[in-house]
Amino acid sequence: MIGGGQLARMMIPPAVALGLELRVLAETEGSSAGLAATAVGDYRDAATVLAFARGVDVVTFDHEHVPQEVLAELVAAGVAVHPGPEALAVARDKILMRRRLSELGAPIPAWAVVTDAGELAAFLAEQGGRAVVKTPRGGYDGKGVRVVTRPEEVADWFAEAGASAEGADGSPAGLLAEAFVPFRRELAQQVARRPSGQVVAWPLVETVQRDGVCAEVTAPAPGAEASAPGSTGDLAARAEALATRIAEGLGVTGALAVELFETAEGELLVNELAMRPHNSGHWSIDGAVTSQFEQHLRAVADLPLGDPAPTAAWSVMVNVLGGPSGQTMLDRYPAAMAAQPAAKLHSYDKSSRPGRKVGHVTVTGDDLESVRAQARAAAAFFQG
Amino acid sequence: MIGGGQLARMMIPPAVALGLELRVLAETEGSSAGLAATAVGDYRDAATVLAFARGVDVVTFDHEHVPQEVLAELVAAGVAVHPGPEALAVARDKILMRRRLSELGAPIPAWAVVTDAGELAAFLAEQGGRAVVKTPRGGYDGKGVRVVTRPEEVADWFAEAGASAEGADGSPAGLLAEAFVPFRRELAQQVARRPSGQVVAWPLVETVQRDGVCAEVTAPAPGAEASAPGSTGDLAARAEALATRIAEGLGVTGALAVELFETAEGELLVNELAMRPHNSGHWSIDGAVTSQFEQHLRAVADLPLGDPAPTAAWSVMVNVLGGPSGQTMLDRYPAAMAAQPAAKLHSYDKSSRPGRKVGHVTVTGDDLESVRAQARAAAAFFQG
Repeated sequence: MIGGGQLARMMIPPAVALGLELRVLAETEGSSAGLAATAVGDYRDAATVLAFARGVDVVTFDHEHVPQEVLAELVAAGVAVHPGPEALAVARDKILMRRRLSELGAPIPAWAVVTDAGELAAFLAEQGGRAVVKTPRGGYDGKGVRVVTRPEEVADWFAEAGASAEGADGSPAGLLAEAFVPFRRELAQQVARRPSGQVVAWPLVETVQRDGVCAEVTAPAPGAEASAPGSTGDLAARAEALATRIAEGLGVTGALAVELFETAEGELLVNELAMRPHNSGHWSIDGAVTSQFEQHLRAVADLPLGDPAPTAAWSVMVNVLGGPSGQTMLDRYPAAMAAQPAAKLHSYDKSSRPGRKVGHVTVTGDDLESVRAQARAAAAFFQG
Repeated sequence: MIGGGQLARMMIPPAVALGLELRVLAETEGSSAGLAATAVGDYRDAATVLAFARGVDVVTFDHEHVPQEVLAELVAAGVAVHPGPEALAVARDKILMRRRLSELGAPIPAWAVVTDAGELAAFLAEQGGRAVVKTPRGGYDGKGVRVVTRPEEVADWFAEAGASAEGADGSPAGLLAEAFVPFRRELAQQVARRPSGQVVAWPLVETVQRDGVCAEVTAPAPGAEASAPGSTGDLAARAEALATRIAEGLGVTGALAVELFETAEGELLVNELAMRPHNSGHWSIDGAVTSQFEQHLRAVADLPLGDPAPTAAWSVMVNVLGGPSGQTMLDRYPAAMAAQPAAKLHSYDKSSRPGRKVGHVTVTGDDLESVRAQARAAAAFFQG
């Protein structure tokens, strides 16, 4: 696995259970996935990545930032890479993503590539004066995303190198402008797909973002079995079909998360894609027969996929954002564990920093209100 | 953790989840818990163990074989040791165990210490000609246990050094002779206890042994809620009360497994004790809110204990004994995973060897017959 963040970290337990040897190329010493790190180095350096990949059966990723030319060298060297370079290019670049989603006929917000203030002004005029502008690459957790009413609000992005020139690896020039969607709520549909084609889907989940960062996930999404007026099939079935179509259309191997908007009319629009385990699926560690982390391992190893069924009526996952001021999560365990014995606590072994994802909490059970209250109460012990 | 077997291995996932740093003193390179091994050495050597223990918050064990004098040195050096030497002495020596259980008034089969053939002959005569003889130390998985009708059947044990002399550390001389109990079934009750006193209990489980080795566990034990004629309280409540009394009476810290016989009359007799995670509790990884491995970590760290409630109506765990002939468990994954997508597969990363515990499989669900059939079918892929 290239990348030593919390996603790599959370691969360790299922790798241990299954007896799969997980090796991690981490960015730094002392990474979140340090226990499995067999190398530390720059994932943008082909020689580093090739040396790491020597002797492994398959290479996969905890982020989508490995440059296309490095991926190409891996493939040229005969290394199995999942997801593959073609799919990852779509995950890495939000403009390519919109092009491919449009080609697939997937429902997405109206979008345009804008290379200067004039083009953005025109798009704003079309969209009633408001739009979402995104840097095509490198964004995460709300970074690289702005809701704007005037082109000047992204003048800095236009001024940056690359905004008006095609990338060396063929990545499109410009910024992505999208229609602002007054969604009813945000949802996420996760599937996993093997190289040999098998696809399985977890239940559709509801996600709540705060300041662009995933804060809370409810699995399954309440009311997802209800049919929307005028639509064919219930929300859950439509989301699963859509995510499956995207996974197959883009040739995704491993886990795919499709972030969705549900509109007031009950329509689904694709917001973003992630071709890896995703925050919207952390609940599955404690709430599904097969977690997204185990499933990703099985998928990239082309092993038959596990049952994605939930093990409880409801799972609620609450992120620990920022972490306890001047302390670690462990410092708060005595109080948190005493108060919330059913909460599953997950620490990423990261120091506290405002807004940083340092852990999460999941509670499962029969009663949604109780489950949610316990999860929120447990997470609150680690904040402030 | 002293000992690098599968119990230490299965500590790794909850340690990763909680962000606790697990260090293992393994017996050999390439141990089952090798990922967490920070030292390799002889647990009987005080200097080795003391060096390993330097800088850790608490020392615990995946077996009970660390010599008493080594434990004493740890304590003298100010190291927190859980379970403590006094409790471990009882787990390590089956004669001491019977003495202490008798003192606690715990129901156990009739027993005697026999130091020669004449004493065993007398015990056999008292017990109707049949008894179980056990070496007081070092036995596991049926080793060191024989059902005998004649003293000659354990002549080799009597001949061994130590059978007729008190050990250097005060361990009793002789062999343990016990009444043969024609039990209805075998059960196990697990509890965990913190140094500060909190005790929690998992559901009572039913265990099936083959050739003295745990083969299958059903959680909870079917019918455990039913009251036996003439007894006060149901089986589950009596087992929990008994195990709690033993944990408190012996001052156990960490996980305690109480292996039980259920007699035809519905009485419970204590068979053996283990002061660590135990095969009878492996189901809890996939079938309980808090697994025995997480709970043991919490207990020895004196953190508040987690909810031991089952997450499913039924869990069935089937051991993989011996392992696939000439292959690894991984070689059988394609077939096993395809046939049993709901089975949770656990490999201990050990080579196949007749009778060896190389892994286990757990299935959870609402219907016991279906759950059991799936678990057995999945485990069968790894045998033969």
